[in-house]
This record gives sequence, structure tokens and C-alpha cells, in this order.
Amino acid sequence: MLQLYIGNKNYSSWSMRAWVLLRQAGIPFEEKFVRFDGFDSQSEFKRTMTAISPTGTVPLLRDGDISVWDSLAIAEYAAEQFPDKQLWPKDKAARASARSICAEMHGGFTALRSACPMNIEADLAEVGRIVWRDNAAVRKNVERLCSMWSHLLAQHGGPMLFDQFSIADAYYAPVCSRLKTYQLPIPGEIAAYIERVHQLPGVKAWIDAALAEQDFVAVDEPYRAER
Amino acid sequence: MLQLYIGNKNYSSWSMRAWVLLRQAGIPFEEKFVRFDGFDSQSEFKRTMTAISPTGTVPLLRDGDISVWDSLAIAEYAAEQFPDKQLWPKDKAARASARSICAEMHGGFTALRSACPMNIEADLAEVGRIVWRDNAAVRKNVERLCSMWSHLLAQHGGPMLFDQFSIADAYYAPVCSRLKTYQLPIPGEIAAYIERVHQLPGVKAWIDAALAEQDFVAVDEPYRAER
Repeated sequence: MLQLYIGNKNYSSWSMRAWVLLRQAGIPFEEKFVRFDGFDSQSEFKRTMTAISPTGTVPLLRDGDISVWDSLAIAEYAAEQFPDKQLWPKDKAARASARSICAEMHGGFTALRSACPMNIEADLAEVGRIVWRDNAAVRKNVERLCSMWSHLLAQHGGPMLFDQFSIADAYYAPVCSRLKTYQLPIPGEIAAYIERVHQLPGVKAWIDAALAEQDFVAVDEPYRAER
Repeated sequence: MLQLYIGNKNYSSWSMRAWVLLRQAGIPFEEKFVRFDGFDSQSEFKRTMTAISPTGTVPLLRDGDISVWDSLAIAEYAAEQFPDKQLWPKDKAARASARSICAEMHGGFTALRSACPMNIEADLAEVGRIVWRDNAAVRKNVERLCSMWSHLLAQHGGPMLFDQFSIADAYYAPVCSRLKTYQLPIPGEIAAYIERVHQLPGVKAWIDAALAEQDFVAVDEPYRAER
């Protein structure tokens, strides 16, 4: 059976992408949880992951002897291994577009990712207001997200970015969570998409588990001194 | 015919990945050159690219009505459209590994990419010595590169990372160029791989064209006042 190594569900946005994808698509896997106790070389997390992954990061997918150590490579691996799950859109142009936006997320949106780290259980609305006021790069990232989603939802008719659930929705699920946590201002149609993502059973299962974690990892908490 | 929009060959490392991939694999395409005159919204570059790409960046691949606006998505698109070219390794485990290292490059190696921007025509050996002395994150990036390449060359027997040329070599070609330009210290087997990459006809063609450009883009020149 596939094994998926992940970090804390409350914080690990890259883990969330891979986990939500497999879970929502109904692909069976064994979850291997590696707690974030820190990210320096002496942490238990790094020592565990460095022993099994060349980058020492999560998510890591293992399929027998095969290791896949990046969320986008995991998505492509799963799409290839489970063609009946149609993880990418079937239409060629839609698939090219889905791959482009996933790659765009993978290497971009750095301002939003840096200023608004995922923190599912927290209410950081006031932080969000300050970030929104002061950080033009975050505003630009959110503007791009809204324009991307709005365009795709109109083009493919919803409810997901490419009609049915695909890797693209899994890939943007952590961003949906950030937009909620920091309550960044977005149009109603975008808020409605975010709600639909949150109602996906695979996303709900991740969020419920994140809320149950009740762990506090200081290095992932730039805005809270305690829970 | 495919159209590939690229920036200056001397500087545009993301363009280079897509261009080298198609050229080295013998996939015909029309090159659309968009000069880097700057990256603000008023630049001719941004105005040109924003009109045809949602991100306003290069590379952009167009195939009729289809747009693919990221180098990794372009690689996947080409791999799908030209299966006989075997752009990814045929073996499943090797393919998973190739996808992982490409994704790792796509979202990582930020210290090296930031401190040592691609500049094919320049000799920045002295800058390289200072970067190497002062920048631990760059040293760590290079250590990871050497360990990755050394492992893959041993595992698959060379001459390329996965035996024959694949997306992975195209993806790391700009890094090979950086290591040469800044003359960062690397073991002999790694230098030999870099030489082999530079001898690939597709890479040679890019480099020759970069040297012929004789353009100077100040925003891409943190270390030179003039040519």
C-alpha cells in the first residue's frame, strides 16, 4: 500500500495537498505522521525525514521501493498510477491549464505563503487586516487568485475549478484555508468556491483532524504566543 | 506549429529549460523572442506578455488555442504530446525520481538562484568566491546538487542523469551554466557532467545564441555595471 508521510495537519500546507488529493480521490494509503518539533538538523522531524528522503521534507510518498518527494511529483505519480480516477482534467486544453496553475502555485504566491502561513485552527482576522493594508504583494497574489478562479469557474461551470474535483482543487485547498483564517477580502463567488472546497469530504477530514491536533509549534506561529 | 515565447537567452533560466527541452528532443517550434527591457508593468516585456499570458511571464508555450505558462507544465505537456520522444524516463521508479528532482528545482534552490543569477556570457568567478565564502545556504544548495547528481549518475550509469537525455537534464541545464559562470567548487565527476550537458547540441545552440545577444539588462546584472 502507498505510504504518505506528512507533517502537522494544522500547519503543513504541502502535506495537505497530497493527502487531500489521495483521500478525496479514494486512493487508499497509509498515513505516516511526523510531528513538527522543529526544522533544524537536530529536530526529531528532520532526523526522521532525512533518513528516508533526499530533501528531508514532507510530503513524501512511498510505493514499495519508489520514493516521490514533492507534492507536485506525487500528484503526477498518482495521476499515472490511477488513470481511472481522472486526477487531471480529461480535456487536453483544460489539463494544460490545470498543470499550469498547479506549477504557478508550486513556485509562486510567495508573498501570500510567507505573510499568511497556514494555521487552520487559528482566527487571524486582525493580522489579515494589517497584512492587507500594508502588503501590496499579498494583495497582488490574492488578485491573481480571484482572477484565476473566477475565470476557470466561468469557463468550466464549476463547482470545482475544472468542473469535477481535480489535482488543481487539492493544490489550492491550503490557500482556501489561508483566505478563511486571515479573512482576506474576496468577492462572493470566490468565497462560495472556498466553501465548496471546505465541504469536500477529503478536505473536511483533513480539517477535522487538524482541529483535533491541538498542538502548538512555535516556529509555525509568527502571530500567536500560545494557543 | 508550437510557439515558444522566451526572454533573453543570456539571462532567462526558465526560458532555457523549455527551449533546450524542445530543441534537444527535436520537437519543432517557432521561437518568439520577447526582450527583457524591464519587469515593471510599463515595460514592453510585461505589456507584451501580460496580453497573452495570465502570469505575464516567460516561458509561454502556445499550441493553437492552448496556452501553457510554466516551464514544468510545458515539460509535462510536451511529454504527453510527443510520447515517442520519451522526455521522461521509461522506468516508473526513474520517472518518479526525475519528476521529484524537477519539482525540487522548480520550487527550491532559492539561495543559489538568488545569489547566482544566470548570466551565460559573464565571468563572475570572483563573485562566486565571495558567495561561497559568505553564503551558507548557497553552499548547502550546491552540496545537495552534487549529492543528487552523483547518486543519479552512479545509479543510472550516465552520461545524463537518467542515462539518456530527459526533462531532468533540461531542467538542470541553467544550474550547470551558473556553476560555470560563478566557478563554484565542485567535484570532478560533477564538472564532467556539466561539460556533457554543455556539449548537448540543444544546450550549445542556446549558449551560442546567448553569447551572440550582446545585450545588457541592468535589472539582471547585480554584479556588473556594464558589459
